Amino acid sequence: MRIFGIDPGSTVTGFGVIEKRRGRVHLIDGGCIRTHSKQPFTERLLAIHQGLVDAIQRNQPDEVAIESIFRYKSSESALRLGQARGVALLAIAQGGFTAHEYNPTTIKRTIGAHGKADKKAVAKMVEMLLGTKITGPADVSDALAIAICHAHHNRSLVGGRT
Amino acid sequence: MRIFGIDPGSTVTGFGVIEKRRGRVHLIDGGCIRTHSKQPFTERLLAIHQGLVDAIQRNQPDEVAIESIFRYKSSESALRLGQARGVALLAIAQGGFTAHEYNPTTIKRTIGAHGKADKKAVAKMVEMLLGTKITGPADVSDALAIAICHAHHNRSLVGGRT
Repeated sequence: MRIFGIDPGSTVTGFGVIEKRRGRVHLIDGGCIRTHSKQPFTERLLAIHQGLVDAIQRNQPDEVAIESIFRYKSSESALRLGQARGVALLAIAQGGFTAHEYNPTTIKRTIGAHGKADKKAVAKMVEMLLGTKITGPADVSDALAIAICHAHHNRSLVGGRT
Repeated sequence: MRIFGIDPGSTVTGFGVIEKRRGRVHLIDGGCIRTHSKQPFTERLLAIHQGLVDAIQRNQPDEVAIESIFRYKSSESALRLGQARGVALLAIAQGGFTAHEYNPTTIKRTIGAHGKADKKAVAKMVEMLLGTKITGPADVSDALAIAICHAHHNRSLVGGRT
């Protein structure tokens, strides 16, 4: 079972790919799509969408998971984040996948961190679970945490499928 | 000069196409993409994106304009609207267009309504300016108002080009 996780953002969108074999999770791929605030916003959305379409295509996952967000600090940032998340959801749907969504608290708790753990603590747990060092920004380990979270919940739902 | 206007929304996305000839605006096309709250959200985004890609392709506009929104009543609705607007902006960029953005007050004032005019008043002004009855929901006349607004501002910017 190969899972592709996405941590969407208008500046940095992280992605992480894991494989679950015999109850353990293994790192397959991880990276991020960076855009610059000086670029026209449409170009940034194009880059996020195309970057995810390419990474999904390259990694051939079985399932895709994404962080769900329902509340945000201001409506301005919610709109900006919503636009980035919209093109990420589109890339998932265009690949023929269902978007499995998990909220930040569930993700953190599932990987063994507490619900309000910071990015550093999340990265540490992800490295322990995957048994390897994660290079790159925190957005990559956040995306891997989302994928690991889905691996866990998916197993619970289908009764031990690995 | 043919202009394609978009009024994005997660339930109804309106579009309207006008042509400006010798200082007057003429109706070319108008319609809307409806999605249902019972559909998975990714399917709704797919429908909005594909509907706009098709309508832009069919109408071969010279320029594309979209309503800009920076504040919204709640962060939840801002996120939902942002996602719909994200795939609309992507459709514009994938067509090779710049997204010309106008805020609701500018749009209303440009077409001769007051800044807080309701949808009915906007529709009435749009019908007067285009010299024809507009069928369909208010989202269509809103999208036409956006296109007319761009026709006006574009003229001002380039010194009378029609």
